[in-house]
Order: sequence, then structure tokens, then C-alpha cells
Amino acid sequence: MYAMTDRKDKRYYFDWAASAPFDITQTQPHYGNPSSLHSEGRAAKQAIEDARQKCADVLQVPPQTLYFTSGGTESNSIAILSNLMRKGNGRIISSLAEHASVRDAMETLDRLGKPVGVITVDSGGRVTAENLQKVLEKFEGIRFCSIMAVNNEVGSVNDIACLRDVMRKYTEKKAPVHFHCDLVQAVGKMPLDISNWEIDSASISAHKFCGPRGIGLLYLRRPAGQGGIEILYKGGGQENGIKGGTENIQGAVSLAECLEKYANPKTVTENHARALERWNRLTSSLMAMERCTIIPVHRTARNTNGNEFSPYILQAAFKNIPGEVMARALDDMGFAVSTGAACSSSSPERPVLKAMGVEENLRIEGIRISQGFTTTDQDIEALINAITEVLKFL
Amino acid sequence: MYAMTDRKDKRYYFDWAASAPFDITQTQPHYGNPSSLHSEGRAAKQAIEDARQKCADVLQVPPQTLYFTSGGTESNSIAILSNLMRKGNGRIISSLAEHASVRDAMETLDRLGKPVGVITVDSGGRVTAENLQKVLEKFEGIRFCSIMAVNNEVGSVNDIACLRDVMRKYTEKKAPVHFHCDLVQAVGKMPLDISNWEIDSASISAHKFCGPRGIGLLYLRRPAGQGGIEILYKGGGQENGIKGGTENIQGAVSLAECLEKYANPKTVTENHARALERWNRLTSSLMAMERCTIIPVHRTARNTNGNEFSPYILQAAFKNIPGEVMARALDDMGFAVSTGAACSSSSPERPVLKAMGVEENLRIEGIRISQGFTTTDQDIEALINAITEVLKFL
Repeated sequence: MYAMTDRKDKRYYFDWAASAPFDITQTQPHYGNPSSLHSEGRAAKQAIEDARQKCADVLQVPPQTLYFTSGGTESNSIAILSNLMRKGNGRIISSLAEHASVRDAMETLDRLGKPVGVITVDSGGRVTAENLQKVLEKFEGIRFCSIMAVNNEVGSVNDIACLRDVMRKYTEKKAPVHFHCDLVQAVGKMPLDISNWEIDSASISAHKFCGPRGIGLLYLRRPAGQGGIEILYKGGGQENGIKGGTENIQGAVSLAECLEKYANPKTVTENHARALERWNRLTSSLMAMERCTIIPVHRTARNTNGNEFSPYILQAAFKNIPGEVMARALDDMGFAVSTGAACSSSSPERPVLKAMGVEENLRIEGIRISQGFTTTDQDIEALINAITEVLKFL
Repeated sequence: MYAMTDRKDKRYYFDWAASAPFDITQTQPHYGNPSSLHSEGRAAKQAIEDARQKCADVLQVPPQTLYFTSGGTESNSIAILSNLMRKGNGRIISSLAEHASVRDAMETLDRLGKPVGVITVDSGGRVTAENLQKVLEKFEGIRFCSIMAVNNEVGSVNDIACLRDVMRKYTEKKAPVHFHCDLVQAVGKMPLDISNWEIDSASISAHKFCGPRGIGLLYLRRPAGQGGIEILYKGGGQENGIKGGTENIQGAVSLAECLEKYANPKTVTENHARALERWNRLTSSLMAMERCTIIPVHRTARNTNGNEFSPYILQAAFKNIPGEVMARALDDMGFAVSTGAACSSSSPERPVLKAMGVEENLRIEGIRISQGFTTTDQDIEALINAITEVLKFL
């Protein structure tokens, strides 16, 4: 179909934001149940506690604040649905750019009669201090707020420390607000400062940084039930009553290994610098293409240091080429890119782009190019060539 | 400490009910996100749908009735917590011998103001038709009922077809009751007849039949939302909105492989016959020991064919030896047995034994011996010898 059919065999993966390639060392299987008292059980218990300690060391938080879950989605739901157990009519707010797993939890709360509210985002998909301030002033009795660190569709980075300050002022004047932060697209891709951010809870998903599926972390600053959140469902009481079910030891061990490898501060800084270089190379080429629009348009001017937008995620539209057509054309040439978030790819709506005020034709034409730790300069060059090629035909 | 210290190196595993040894073939890793449209995504989607079809073939149900979850606990919680979304004041009932993951979901419903009710069990830990009948007559508007197939502490097998008949009569006279069945201890260990039982939902956990941790199945006879249950939380909409989060492909593939290997009718029948022989050998020896009481005491007389009690699970008490002491002594000699269910081992209460009317000293002295597919006659002989040895010292 295209001139570059010889490329078909080699694949170029640009959908890291949906799921990263695995980098999993086969770990010693512990088949004991950590709740059992015998040797096999104790060995399993030791393995999961060692994994927790490794994660705690990387994230610089106490190990007892980390709980293994089945992934980022479950971590978000445990934190947000805990509001069902809270007495009183405290309002739960979240930004309009949150991941589907947060949006749906908010919808569940709403359907069950809990008061909810939304924080609008600016044209870059970010929550500004002003917008948050406005919502805090508008409603009485806000008790819970969910804001993501890095947006999964356009890569906008929220200034968590600044937003925390806004909330702290509100807390001092009125009442404490639980601040939940979805870190799924942030881990390994920007410096984290969980303790100093003073966030109350956070979600992490292993498969976004080369770990296995079905395992994630929930960070809870305070233990549940003791001034912290009330858990909706404790199951068999595992993970201190936060996530029931026999513990996924191998998942936890692999998560800890990937966190050590990819989320240590030195590696994060080095990888980020390289990703930014590649991003600059890619965007400068894209901007030279007449039919290409970077979303948001002002991103390239603002993102000189990669602090406002993650260099790992890029949203771009190509005039008169629906995103799905572009993605399929690139796929045929060996390039995996996505339209929107994978979790919402079955829905033609692009709620995050809509919330940013992106006009309809750009929403339809938008594709997401997301790179990762092992993406190379050559991959970027190949992608630029492929897009150039596609534009000749479509 | 004991005469048989030379046995220390070899381990004998008798805690299959807590978690089975793994039998997992390393599967080809699919790192694509099944929601993505590119080749990697489509390959991942194909892999999970193939796995679903394999499971459907073994369980003889349509593939679209099976949803991958993070395990039995989550499957139970999705089914039971769906009652939070149901309008009206329909009552939710469950037996007193259910697993902690069911008990806790019932507690959550109760705390959130949903009317709940309990079905008592007989001295064998079973739900009788009479007991179920009594509860159905006692309450108005029962809409949901959770009863396990095989009890995880004493191995009691409920007659699901018979209980379904009782409920069907109620349904015809009054209103439909959703029948949820926890199959976690049943899969691979007794013939299943999900379609003919006409159960509305069921839970399955891979690691109980040699599959990996963190993966299970929820069976739903009717699609959610269309006459079926209303799901509390859809997350990103994966698994048809039943279980959100990027799909755990490798877990699903391994689950399907273990289901094919261990839950096909021929293997189930053969393994069951062998397990029953071993069980008979074990219990006849135990009954010859003056200080041993099989729980329930009448089990040996009733369980000639293994239909009323699973030959894979045995609960026994040894006079004047607390279960924990017995378990530790056996562990030192190389034998893994447990006290109670692993999920409740941190709690000294034995709610299931209590519900059966087992007296306090037997509850304290009870240990669970659970065998599996690869347990051998030699393992049983060794266990009998070890227990004999322990009884000389304790």
C-alpha cells in the first residue's frame, strides 16, 4: 500500500502511555499464601514485604504507606469510592481531565447521591491554582479532591505542590481536604516528591513503567480508618484491609524491580533529558509539516524544559486525516500510535480534549504519540519519515 | 527438636486450599493494550479472547458470560457490591459459612443501609434446602443470595442444584432472586455444571488450581445492566465494564491453560477418585489416633463418595494441642498445614466452625489439611507418620 513496505517487519512502538513493553526478570515463585504461618507462607510474606520496602525506598515514603493493588484503576477506585463510607455530605471534586478510572468513580459517587463537583482545566489541560481556588470557594464542605500529576492524553503536568498550597489554605480556614493524586503517567517520567507534596493518596500502575499487568500501588499517607479514608471493601483483610485477595507476590516483586530500575531519581532525570531531546526533534519536524497541529497549539512555545508538559506524550492532529485513519496507516507501516487514551478508544468522544476547548475537527484528527525509556533517536527519525510518507498518500 | 529432623529438607505441602503450587508455562508476552487499535493491541486482544474461549469451553458456558478479574475475592465483591446500585430495598442474603471476601461484602452492604440476612448452616457446614426455605419465607423481597459450592475450611459441598430449585420456586411465586455462587474451592475439585445449575453469577480464582496470583473469573449469566446486575464501578470500561484496568493478558492466558489442564471433566473425575482414596487412607489413620477428632465428627460416616464433603479439604483437631502449635510443629518437620482459612489466620475466631456449632476447644485445636492434584500416597503416609511423631512429644 505504501512505498515503505520493507519496514513492515520491524515494529516501532509509540504507545507507551497505553502500556509499556515488559522488562520483567523471572522471579523465584513463592506459592505460599502470605497469610499462612508455615515456611512457604512466611517466605511469601517476606518476599512481598521486601518488595514493599524497595518501593518505599525509591518513592521515599514509609513502607507501611504502600499497598499492592491490581493496578492504577483499582488504586484510584479504592481511594475515591472510600467516600461512600464517609459520613456527612462532604463534596468530592476532580478535574475534567482525569483518567476514565477516576471519571467513572466520580460518576458512581454521583449516582449514589454523593455531592460531586468538577474543576475545569485550561487550554493546556492543566488545573490552575485559580481554577482550583474558584471551585473551593464555590462549594461548602469539600472533603476530597482528585487531580492527576500527568495527563494521559496530552501530557500536561500539574503543579502538585502549588495546588497542595491552595488546598492547605482552604484546609486551615475551613476543613481538611483529602488530596488524591493519580501518578500513573508520572512514575519514571518526572521527579516525584510524594512526601513533600503532602498528598494524602496516590495511584501507581506497574505496566506503565515496564512492569507486569495486574499489579499497582496505592499510597495512603495515613492508615485507613485512623483519620485516613474508610475502605469500602476489605475482602479477606490482606494488605492491611486495603486490597483483599491472596497477594500477587510475583507481581509485587516485579513492580518493585521496575520501580528501582526506572523510577530512581538519577535515571528519571537522565531519561527525561533524553526524552525531551527526542521530543524536540519530533515536534520541530512536525511543526514544519503544513498539515500538522500540535495539541495544544501553544505547547511548543511553553515547553522549553518539559516541566509543563511531559516529553513522553504528544498529541497531534493532521488536517483532513481522522486520527483513526492515521493510526491505521502508521500501523501498516510498522508504527504503533493511538487515538486518545487506550481506555477510551472504543468511544469516539475525546472528553479531555473537549475540556481543553480543542475544536471538534482537531479532536477527530488527534493521535497520541507516546515514547518511552528505550525509544531511540532512530525511532523518532523513522516516525518522522513515516508520517511524511503517509501525508503524501492521504 | 523432633526425631525426624532428616525430613526437614523435603517439604510436604498440605495447604492447597490457601494456594496451590504454580504450574505455569511461560507465555508469549503481549505488551500491547487490548484497547489499542494497532497490531500489538489487536494481538493482545486476540490473546485474551482466545483465553476466554478456552475457559468457556471447559466451563461449558458462552464466552461472553466470562470476565477476567483480579481474583476470587474481586469476583465476589463485584457481584455482591452490585447490590449498592440496585434501586429498592431488596434483601441480600448469604450463608454463615461463606468466605471472608463474601462476609466482608455483606458487611459493607449492611453498613451502607442495605437490608441483609443470613442462612444458617447445619453441623456439617452445609446449607440445607430447609434452612434456605426458612429464610426465604421469613423475609419479604429477597433479591440476591450468595452460597458457596465448597466450604474452604471443612470442605462441605452444597447441593447447588437442589438449592437452585428452592430458589426457583420462590422466584416463581414472589420475585427473581439472583443466585451467586462462590466456586473458588470447587474448580478442578468436583464436577461443575454451571449452565444447568442456572446460577446467575460465580467466582473463580486461578491460584487455587495452579494458576498465577492476581487473576480470576467472574461468570455472569446475563450481561450487566440488561436484566443482570448493575456494576458499581466500571473503571476504563474494560471487560465489558465489569472489571476496569488494562487487561492482565498473561494472567488470563495462564488461567485458561490451568483450567484446561485441571478442570476438564475427565481429569476432575480421575483426580477426585484419587483424592478420595488418599483422604480415606488419611482419615482412617487419624480416626485410629485417640486424640484426633475429625470436624465435623459425622463426616467420615457420611462421606463415602466424596459428594457431601470435598476430599481435598480436611479439618481435624488434636486434643490439648492448639491448632497453631500443631501447625508449627508440623512445619518444623517439613509439613505445611494451616489453621483455619489463610484469609482469617490473623484472627483467632473461627466463624465458620462456630456457625457449625463446633465447640470452643475443637475450634482452637482445629487444623486444616488440604491436598491437591499432585499430592501422592507417599505424602499422605509421611503426614500420618509426622502427626504420630508429634503426638508423642506434645
